[in-house]
Amino acid sequence: MAPQHAQSLRFRLPPLLFFLQTGFIVVFIFNVDIEQNVQTKQHAFNNYYSEFQDVHVMVILGFGFLATFLVRYSFSGAGFTLLVAAMAVQWAVILNGVESMYDRGKIWINMRSLVVAEMCTASSLIAIGAVLGKTNPVHLLLIALLEISGFVLNGWLLQTFLKVQFLNTIMLLHIFGAFFGLMLSWVLYRQGSEQLHEKEKIDRKTGLFSVMGTLFLWMFWPSFNSVLVEVDHLDRGRSLRAVYSTYLALAVSAVTAAGFSVLTSPQGKLNLFHIQRCTLAGGVAIGVAMSAVHLPWVAMAIGFAAALISTLGSRYIKPLMLLAFECHDTCGVLSVHGLPGILGWMVQLLLQIADSDDLTTAVRFAVFHICTLLITLSLSMSLGLITGFLLKCNFWRPTHNKKCFDDQAFWEFPHQAGKR
Amino acid sequence: MAPQHAQSLRFRLPPLLFFLQTGFIVVFIFNVDIEQNVQTKQHAFNNYYSEFQDVHVMVILGFGFLATFLVRYSFSGAGFTLLVAAMAVQWAVILNGVESMYDRGKIWINMRSLVVAEMCTASSLIAIGAVLGKTNPVHLLLIALLEISGFVLNGWLLQTFLKVQFLNTIMLLHIFGAFFGLMLSWVLYRQGSEQLHEKEKIDRKTGLFSVMGTLFLWMFWPSFNSVLVEVDHLDRGRSLRAVYSTYLALAVSAVTAAGFSVLTSPQGKLNLFHIQRCTLAGGVAIGVAMSAVHLPWVAMAIGFAAALISTLGSRYIKPLMLLAFECHDTCGVLSVHGLPGILGWMVQLLLQIADSDDLTTAVRFAVFHICTLLITLSLSMSLGLITGFLLKCNFWRPTHNKKCFDDQAFWEFPHQAGKR
Amino acid sequence: MAPQHAQSLRFRLPPLLFFLQTGFIVVFIFNVDIEQNVQTKQHAFNNYYSEFQDVHVMVILGFGFLATFLVRYSFSGAGFTLLVAAMAVQWAVILNGVESMYDRGKIWINMRSLVVAEMCTASSLIAIGAVLGKTNPVHLLLIALLEISGFVLNGWLLQTFLKVQFLNTIMLLHIFGAFFGLMLSWVLYRQGSEQLHEKEKIDRKTGLFSVMGTLFLWMFWPSFNSVLVEVDHLDRGRSLRAVYSTYLALAVSAVTAAGFSVLTSPQGKLNLFHIQRCTLAGGVAIGVAMSAVHLPWVAMAIGFAAALISTLGSRYIKPLMLLAFECHDTCGVLSVHGLPGILGWMVQLLLQIADSDDLTTAVRFAVFHICTLLITLSLSMSLGLITGFLLKCNFWRPTHNKKCFDDQAFWEFPHQAGKR
Repeated sequence: MAPQHAQSLRFRLPPLLFFLQTGFIVVFIFNVDIEQNVQTKQHAFNNYYSEFQDVHVMVILGFGFLATFLVRYSFSGAGFTLLVAAMAVQWAVILNGVESMYDRGKIWINMRSLVVAEMCTASSLIAIGAVLGKTNPVHLLLIALLEISGFVLNGWLLQTFLKVQFLNTIMLLHIFGAFFGLMLSWVLYRQGSEQLHEKEKIDRKTGLFSVMGTLFLWMFWPSFNSVLVEVDHLDRGRSLRAVYSTYLALAVSAVTAAGFSVLTSPQGKLNLFHIQRCTLAGGVAIGVAMSAVHLPWVAMAIGFAAALISTLGSRYIKPLMLLAFECHDTCGVLSVHGLPGILGWMVQLLLQIADSDDLTTAVRFAVFHICTLLITLSLSMSLGLITGFLLKCNFWRPTHNKKCFDDQAFWEFPHQAGKR
Repeated sequence: MAPQHAQSLRFRLPPLLFFLQTGFIVVFIFNVDIEQNVQTKQHAFNNYYSEFQDVHVMVILGFGFLATFLVRYSFSGAGFTLLVAAMAVQWAVILNGVESMYDRGKIWINMRSLVVAEMCTASSLIAIGAVLGKTNPVHLLLIALLEISGFVLNGWLLQTFLKVQFLNTIMLLHIFGAFFGLMLSWVLYRQGSEQLHEKEKIDRKTGLFSVMGTLFLWMFWPSFNSVLVEVDHLDRGRSLRAVYSTYLALAVSAVTAAGFSVLTSPQGKLNLFHIQRCTLAGGVAIGVAMSAVHLPWVAMAIGFAAALISTLGSRYIKPLMLLAFECHDTCGVLSVHGLPGILGWMVQLLLQIADSDDLTTAVRFAVFHICTLLITLSLSMSLGLITGFLLKCNFWRPTHNKKCFDDQAFWEFPHQAGKR
Repeated sequence: MAPQHAQSLRFRLPPLLFFLQTGFIVVFIFNVDIEQNVQTKQHAFNNYYSEFQDVHVMVILGFGFLATFLVRYSFSGAGFTLLVAAMAVQWAVILNGVESMYDRGKIWINMRSLVVAEMCTASSLIAIGAVLGKTNPVHLLLIALLEISGFVLNGWLLQTFLKVQFLNTIMLLHIFGAFFGLMLSWVLYRQGSEQLHEKEKIDRKTGLFSVMGTLFLWMFWPSFNSVLVEVDHLDRGRSLRAVYSTYLALAVSAVTAAGFSVLTSPQGKLNLFHIQRCTLAGGVAIGVAMSAVHLPWVAMAIGFAAALISTLGSRYIKPLMLLAFECHDTCGVLSVHGLPGILGWMVQLLLQIADSDDLTTAVRFAVFHICTLLITLSLSMSLGLITGFLLKCNFWRPTHNKKCFDDQAFWEFPHQAGKR
């Protein structure tokens, strides 16, 4: 086989896709059914469906177009996100249903299980953001499936052993995804990455496509944070509070990110990367802290702090991670999801302690809460490491250094030839 | 008149637009009113409105941006879709209301009638896809109005004489539109089209705009297939099943299309055209087959098969149609809507027969079902032929060969001049 | 400080942002809370939330991407819209709540207050459209805050002294924003603007991004006009009528704008600017006239007339305003929002008079209605003038003439450098 054909994914990607897809269909044949007692759930449907769609739009379009910012990698950004998400939701539906399969004999599909599956997918897309452009679709699929497995395991551990509420475990998706991706990018570090790859840049148009993804995430984030809040349908108060809190946190976040972007810029200019990503930090932080946030100004303060650390992180920590720790984090997931997630975790801790009536409850909560973070961090980082080493294997045909950040490695190129 | 002015649409398009628009307003003055007894339909409104909007987004934004893929034809793709759709929905509201005008004296506008009108519009936009870039807006308007007339007539025939359910007739929109468009592209074939037109190609940015259209279609397709399912509002079970089935079929479809795209590529690469269109084949097939699909894995299997024939069709049948039958099908509507639609029809037949209790019912159903397809195919193809011959007339000022696939023929060009 | 650094916003924008944001948070600490009695409002939530999101999408994505049409100014168009909107909604929530603070001791946040805040923001974004590209973000923020203050004051005056219904005052947002912006553009007129600035043009791709913004506005406008219609939830009839009327008016508007665009073009071609903006004129006019429109054909006729004056206005009045009155109205807000808004006002007057039973009511209504317009016009124009003179001050570091319409003045430029 000639060297230029060595990169062909013809004998890697389709077999993997067909093997997994056939496997999923077989699992669905024997174990999955659509929930039948929907008559009583009519109300739930109305509430859920449009919010489910908002989450769906965020995952497919929001994350997809956010990943189009690289000048020569935009087809891959949007296309691979779609491919990975389409696979990942099926896997997440199966994994999340394992428990109900033991209890009720079947995995039941309903709006809620799809929303949870989309959120697990979001977690894996965050992890993928850290290695975007330096991996091939086979890698991305494996990362997504392993990350989701780890994330679901993490949620199960926390719920079973620490009695953490389901909603709180699912909102750790930002922290889990970010640190998983960070470890991945450390293991998959390529020599020479400390210098900017010539194709790792944006242009006016790809930047704008990416802004579109940002806006979809920004606009629909209130649904993302509120959709799973309510279990009983008599009171939408908590769900509404999540909507308003997220809305305000994001508004403040956008203002603050712009402010710090200009302030830390030597020429006093805005940085598009900050506007695209750090404006979202408020949504991450408030999502993690949500169950403890009761007042609108607290949400706004969280939005302010999240955008602050996210912007400073993007400006100063990201280059440092690259030079000092050899972590080449393409989308800056540490600053955008990791640090704001930890901020949200800390705010939740402080607010819960302040709300506690006596010291025992406070200490007890603090211990459990710290254990939650430690378990999540260690599980995500160790699984990220393992996944990274697994992917280093040449069998998966890693992309050549000079084909990084380039659609031409994976797409029949439409520049010269027509679409036929 | 100088030859370069011969193509001006100044004395063709505005008169046609004003004539039709005035006519529609006159019809609305005498015959159309807003449904008044909405007090009892409050529930219906809540259910319908957000799903109506999803369909609206699919038709205007989804189809509109899907049509922007040609490098020099993107204004026309999005703009003509808007123009045609704005005209077509009015025409479809009138035509679909003719029956109720006989029964109840008026054409009543309500959410359902608008949803049905949007679906008829979708059918005409599919037909237009086959001749995109080789026609002028006058052609497109005539095609849309005639296609919708034929499609409504087809639905009326099937409901009246074969007692086919309304939902089943409306879902034939894919088959009707695709074969109508195919015949049209055959009649309007231009000598020399067997060689790729120099402007019939995509670039990085128009490809990405088109992917955006794809994603909107892909994300909201569950609403498209489910919105008309339920007539009584006590049980949303069937409607929910349509949502889940479509969702799963589309997920599998995206994975499968990517797999076969790489597998059939000599260099083992993805083809953007397949990702843009064949990922949607599952939604087409499941839409047609829906009323017979009860299990999630069946939906997934349909998604797999639909993406398979759609990808193979795009790769192998599309060039064949051009060389052997002189059908130049710009958007590949045969592979994307026609063949998956027929697949859905076949699956529905097989599943209904398998579900039947006795042989008589099965045979009876099979005969009716086959007649349905034959009537639809013959009506769509004959009307496509007639429309094609009508449009060959020079009176409509067909686009010169070298002005095909070029916005400059229709738009005051903004490259050099400003927007003023 | 070197001259090329004179434009740096480092010591203008961040202090302003942080000052305002901190101030808003402080106001929220003491005065704002989330409405608690939501248990009884569960129904209201379901109705409002998805329509609130439609309005949110229109403001952030619709207006944001509509403003990306300038070839070198698209980051600023989308980015500044986000920044201004994020700030403006907070300010609008506070201002609109002042009255309830007197009555009920607190400013309460609920779905309705957020929708109203978004609409005030829309008004300020219209004003900004008139001076887009010739101002810096500090200007834009000040414009937005002052415009919203004026608009809320105008609404309060009309409700208090003329007993105008709340819905009618809020729909004046188009007129208020347009004339405010017009005066602004007159005061901020730059010598030499009568010749087209070399960067004030669109290209294929920015034009298409802008069309995307148009389509989002066009698709979701029915929600914009209907969301605030209903106060009691027993009867959605009026709200539905607003949906259908807006839908039809927009459909006719799109057709008519295309028709007149071709008709008034010397080469018989479509003008992208007309398709992007004049297609929306129907939504503006019907929004203002809505409370008096009962029949679908009236809505269609309004859509026709609005698109007519909007297209003719863009073609003939816009250049005239520039040459004769030195008003350089970048987005043509006079033709797109101002004139259609006044048309809607006139139609409402005529329809209400025709509906009146006796002459006294008719005259009384006419006087009040004319006063409403006069107050709105004089308040918006005088505040626009004052704001303009305030902004002329060099303290705000106005953009150099040759840096107008150019992202490079405000963004760390990603062309050469990477995103890091």
